[in-house]
Amino acid sequence: MAPPAPTSTHRLLPLSLGLFQTALLLFFALFVTYDERSAMASRAEDAERAAQQLHGTFPFFQDIQVMLAVGLGLLLAFLPRYGLSALTHSFLLLNFSLQWALVLQGLLHHLQHGRVLLGLRNVLGAEFAAVTVLISLGAVLGRTSPCQLLAMAFCEVPVYVVTEWLIVTHLGVLDVGGTITIHIFACYFGLGVSKALFGTAKPTAHPKETPTPRSDLMALLGALLLWVFWPSFVAVLCRPGDAQHRAILHTLLALSVGAITAVLASSLLGGGSKLSPCHLQNGSLAGGVAIGAVADVPIPAVAALALGSLSALACVLGFKFLSPLLARRMALRDQGGIHNLHGLPGILGAVASMVAALVTARDTEGSPEGGGGVTGHRQALRQAAGLAVALGSSLLAGMLPGAALHLPCLGPPPEEFCFDDELYFKIQGQGESPPAPGGTPEETPLAMKE
Amino acid sequence: MAPPAPTSTHRLLPLSLGLFQTALLLFFALFVTYDERSAMASRAEDAERAAQQLHGTFPFFQDIQVMLAVGLGLLLAFLPRYGLSALTHSFLLLNFSLQWALVLQGLLHHLQHGRVLLGLRNVLGAEFAAVTVLISLGAVLGRTSPCQLLAMAFCEVPVYVVTEWLIVTHLGVLDVGGTITIHIFACYFGLGVSKALFGTAKPTAHPKETPTPRSDLMALLGALLLWVFWPSFVAVLCRPGDAQHRAILHTLLALSVGAITAVLASSLLGGGSKLSPCHLQNGSLAGGVAIGAVADVPIPAVAALALGSLSALACVLGFKFLSPLLARRMALRDQGGIHNLHGLPGILGAVASMVAALVTARDTEGSPEGGGGVTGHRQALRQAAGLAVALGSSLLAGMLPGAALHLPCLGPPPEEFCFDDELYFKIQGQGESPPAPGGTPEETPLAMKE
Amino acid sequence: MAPPAPTSTHRLLPLSLGLFQTALLLFFALFVTYDERSAMASRAEDAERAAQQLHGTFPFFQDIQVMLAVGLGLLLAFLPRYGLSALTHSFLLLNFSLQWALVLQGLLHHLQHGRVLLGLRNVLGAEFAAVTVLISLGAVLGRTSPCQLLAMAFCEVPVYVVTEWLIVTHLGVLDVGGTITIHIFACYFGLGVSKALFGTAKPTAHPKETPTPRSDLMALLGALLLWVFWPSFVAVLCRPGDAQHRAILHTLLALSVGAITAVLASSLLGGGSKLSPCHLQNGSLAGGVAIGAVADVPIPAVAALALGSLSALACVLGFKFLSPLLARRMALRDQGGIHNLHGLPGILGAVASMVAALVTARDTEGSPEGGGGVTGHRQALRQAAGLAVALGSSLLAGMLPGAALHLPCLGPPPEEFCFDDELYFKIQGQGESPPAPGGTPEETPLAMKE
Repeated sequence: MAPPAPTSTHRLLPLSLGLFQTALLLFFALFVTYDERSAMASRAEDAERAAQQLHGTFPFFQDIQVMLAVGLGLLLAFLPRYGLSALTHSFLLLNFSLQWALVLQGLLHHLQHGRVLLGLRNVLGAEFAAVTVLISLGAVLGRTSPCQLLAMAFCEVPVYVVTEWLIVTHLGVLDVGGTITIHIFACYFGLGVSKALFGTAKPTAHPKETPTPRSDLMALLGALLLWVFWPSFVAVLCRPGDAQHRAILHTLLALSVGAITAVLASSLLGGGSKLSPCHLQNGSLAGGVAIGAVADVPIPAVAALALGSLSALACVLGFKFLSPLLARRMALRDQGGIHNLHGLPGILGAVASMVAALVTARDTEGSPEGGGGVTGHRQALRQAAGLAVALGSSLLAGMLPGAALHLPCLGPPPEEFCFDDELYFKIQGQGESPPAPGGTPEETPLAMKE
Repeated sequence: MAPPAPTSTHRLLPLSLGLFQTALLLFFALFVTYDERSAMASRAEDAERAAQQLHGTFPFFQDIQVMLAVGLGLLLAFLPRYGLSALTHSFLLLNFSLQWALVLQGLLHHLQHGRVLLGLRNVLGAEFAAVTVLISLGAVLGRTSPCQLLAMAFCEVPVYVVTEWLIVTHLGVLDVGGTITIHIFACYFGLGVSKALFGTAKPTAHPKETPTPRSDLMALLGALLLWVFWPSFVAVLCRPGDAQHRAILHTLLALSVGAITAVLASSLLGGGSKLSPCHLQNGSLAGGVAIGAVADVPIPAVAALALGSLSALACVLGFKFLSPLLARRMALRDQGGIHNLHGLPGILGAVASMVAALVTARDTEGSPEGGGGVTGHRQALRQAAGLAVALGSSLLAGMLPGAALHLPCLGPPPEEFCFDDELYFKIQGQGESPPAPGGTPEETPLAMKE
Repeated sequence: MAPPAPTSTHRLLPLSLGLFQTALLLFFALFVTYDERSAMASRAEDAERAAQQLHGTFPFFQDIQVMLAVGLGLLLAFLPRYGLSALTHSFLLLNFSLQWALVLQGLLHHLQHGRVLLGLRNVLGAEFAAVTVLISLGAVLGRTSPCQLLAMAFCEVPVYVVTEWLIVTHLGVLDVGGTITIHIFACYFGLGVSKALFGTAKPTAHPKETPTPRSDLMALLGALLLWVFWPSFVAVLCRPGDAQHRAILHTLLALSVGAITAVLASSLLGGGSKLSPCHLQNGSLAGGVAIGAVADVPIPAVAALALGSLSALACVLGFKFLSPLLARRMALRDQGGIHNLHGLPGILGAVASMVAALVTARDTEGSPEGGGGVTGHRQALRQAAGLAVALGSSLLAGMLPGAALHLPCLGPPPEEFCFDDELYFKIQGQGESPPAPGGTPEETPLAMKE
């Protein structure tokens, strides 16, 4: 069957993007200026320091860009007929959320004398906001139109910006790698959207949602790229020096042990010690999710290992037992298994940060590393409060826009065209004649270079 | 039908490469020495400064290497049966042009006391020369043999080296990201070659030139890699500090807005708001092409946004309307659509650099940022002259070698083996027995590990 | 035929990984602490120096991570039905070897007051150990189970750690890029394992071992990533400043010329100047293997060019003539052709380092660059001794574990399931019902997201 004919509702995508871009241009014209600290510096030393700071941050920044634009997109390309859509939708959401967060964070954090000061740090902060949207995307992948996804991003970014400010600035939670503010928040926001959107209909298997070895290879490639660059993501905002060194090492250790635990757990659970590609794609990254909240804390190295191992185990067990259970009991759809990669390891990491606050505070009593005079109990309570805020705000805020996504004008994909690139990409000859009836979309050529 | 049998003309590829490598070795033996500034430095401070300079440049350099060797190659892999050739030919041209440019630029720029001083900066300059060849390749992709491509590179590199010197050093054009010197030059050189090579025969559709979802995925992957690393390409030669910071931010903004505009324009033009993969692959990069000439100029941030948006729009409109028109009216072949990605956005960027010269000169009158006492009108005229020189030299110089590429000894591919890896890659068993008649090349195994 | 049913021997993989992880946690808990030099530094200058050192090393480190986790994995993905296994097995071996080397090198090199000091440098050293295992994997790829590969890694890492210490620290061999200590060692260790494991049975062609254009494209992508990041691998341990600059330039030149020579040689040897993808995948990297032992030595640039060209030539000739000969005469299996990529160019590089020691010592007599008063003859003898030690220890040590790998409990793959992902990855529905009899594994969906 040919995909549905164009209707007036399909105009919404260019229309909403056009409105957004116009508003963005206006905002930049009226409010944005550059953050040029060294321009005001009369001394050459200060200019050199600015250059060094840029050279110290930029390689981390580029690593993170690879993660967001290539790694996450490929990780979502596990659906065999949905690769173009996975890469394109995540790329579109990345850019939309980045710009939307630049505006909101600019107003909240970088306003001076009525002007938003723009610098690479702002873009970095906005990328973190975009990560949350890309994570949430995983829950509803393949069953949502670009307009629905943009609506989700439009709601998620402001909630993230406020929640992150509340947790980090107001509560003083330590979370350099975003375990609580990014991963937990994004996971439960995405699950909230999914629940509100898909309601109580029991998830059934769709013929197009089964990965092939080839699509699994692409997703594995994405996972490996994320695995490689994860230390940059965790360490980019650390104080240069020992704290940053520690964050890199902790993340490396957690990821490396997590990768082995994922193989171990997957082969234990699989019949005949066979591995499941999705266990590897996700399990090997779980350590990176969990370590974020304690990465720069001077915990012993063995704690990073244990945390990496535990979170990979939780991730694989989640795929095997919890996901089917949630689907059966709560009719919860979680297409990419984000609860297993971001939710469970995130909670483990948050709990670890409470324990670390209790333990390390004792060791560093009075030193400036100990959190500026904050006692361990107090910091542990803060971490717990941060976890509670992230869970509460994300679930609540996710359910609301999730309900709005039902609107037919947002063009939800019909069931038979879920997980299918054909619905969103031009296939050659379309408009003139329908594709050959026997042609599988895999083999049918798409739009030629016009 | 089996591909044509080997003939004596096929010896030309190894022969020409062998001659070139021999000449290169001779040149290096006679003329090249290392640029070791710190070796002469008696003070430890100078040695440390040299180390810092290297650490400040090398990450940018590696990003650019990924763009040239992986990103551009994958972007050209949109032809479903021509992926190996696209990656291999672009890799061969990259290395050939790099070495050829090292020689020519060494003689022109780095000669001291009869010796060419070699450093990472030279290699960087030579890579920029290689980019022009890889861009021009896009116009004639799939219909040219490696020998024809090498002949094109052999002609293009010296013309680029002279033109770049003329434009940047002699005319004083500001073009830190190569909008004029690289993109415009390479685009019209490539179109000149294409016009001279393919003459006035109207382009007709070839059964092997239609992308599949799978080859489009590879090309999209290449586009995403280019998108991620483009800021490094634009900013690598900027003065460290504010100018570099600005160049990075401008490029990020232009690319990000351009990506959204590409989706917007493609969905507006596609029936039923469907996207064309080629619009995305190219449109999302157009902002990077256009921003190059003004990236380090202190323009307002909103100007970078507007330029990115406009150039993505021009790129998509070019694919939709201009390319078919040029093909019909001027019988112009432009396989990869380089006129839409490099030509139109390049011209937009050049015009923007004139406007920026007029406007920013007023603001920074007298300051050293203003271009060393050059008035805005004068700098705008320079930018216009640079654009004229780039256009003139490239079109003229492209037509001449284009005509020489007709030579039968260069082995132009026969029509039925255009866009086909089989012509250039060894398929297993070849020589002993022809491949099975029904075997499609897609499924037929190529050379096994011998 | 369905793959063999699970047996008790399949429990070995999770069991051995579990034991290893437990031992690792114990070791870290008892012995490992952080290397925090700047924590002890009372002066802010020292803290800044530590930060700068990290920022100078980390981009190199990340480049190397891409090589190990993505580049090498993809290079081994040339087998069309074995892509998931190639990526997964190499990723598993990478992590296992990294952790195992961290322990062993920690005990040997980084022990202070009974504690192992952990830093990014240790991880870097451990990655070099992991590279040797990944190279050796190439010889036995597709015919070995994960348990066999882990057993190989378990033996190879300690031999490498001792050999490397012997060659570099004890003998004073100069080998900054690991030509002798990594490439030669790993190659002959792998060949030793292969010989001992597969015995004297003549290698015959297997229907699943022939690459397709698509799998060759993946392998070429891996080769290009390795090509791009190779300079980081060679230069990461050099003294910052001129030596590092030189190492980068030499590696770039050798790789670039090697790439062209590989095309030249492949087209000369192929009928009708057709190229063999495997010649390109390997030949274009040979220059990087050979340059390692002389990369930071002040040799003339032309020598780097000549070495790159010669080693690419040796690599392609090796694939064409030596590999078939070794297979026929010595019944030697070398699936990925590691003897051509690592063995022959490695030996060329080792010989070049002897010549360089003789020649450059004359030029730099008495200067500190000359090797601390070591005469050229002496250094050349050292290089020769290093080569002999690497060859001897690797061949000998490779044969021993190779024999142990015969143990049936390690689960060697049955002949018909060699080179087949199906043996190691869960195919959907398995356990409940066998896959459709006519379904080729290429088309059959693997494990869906559970």
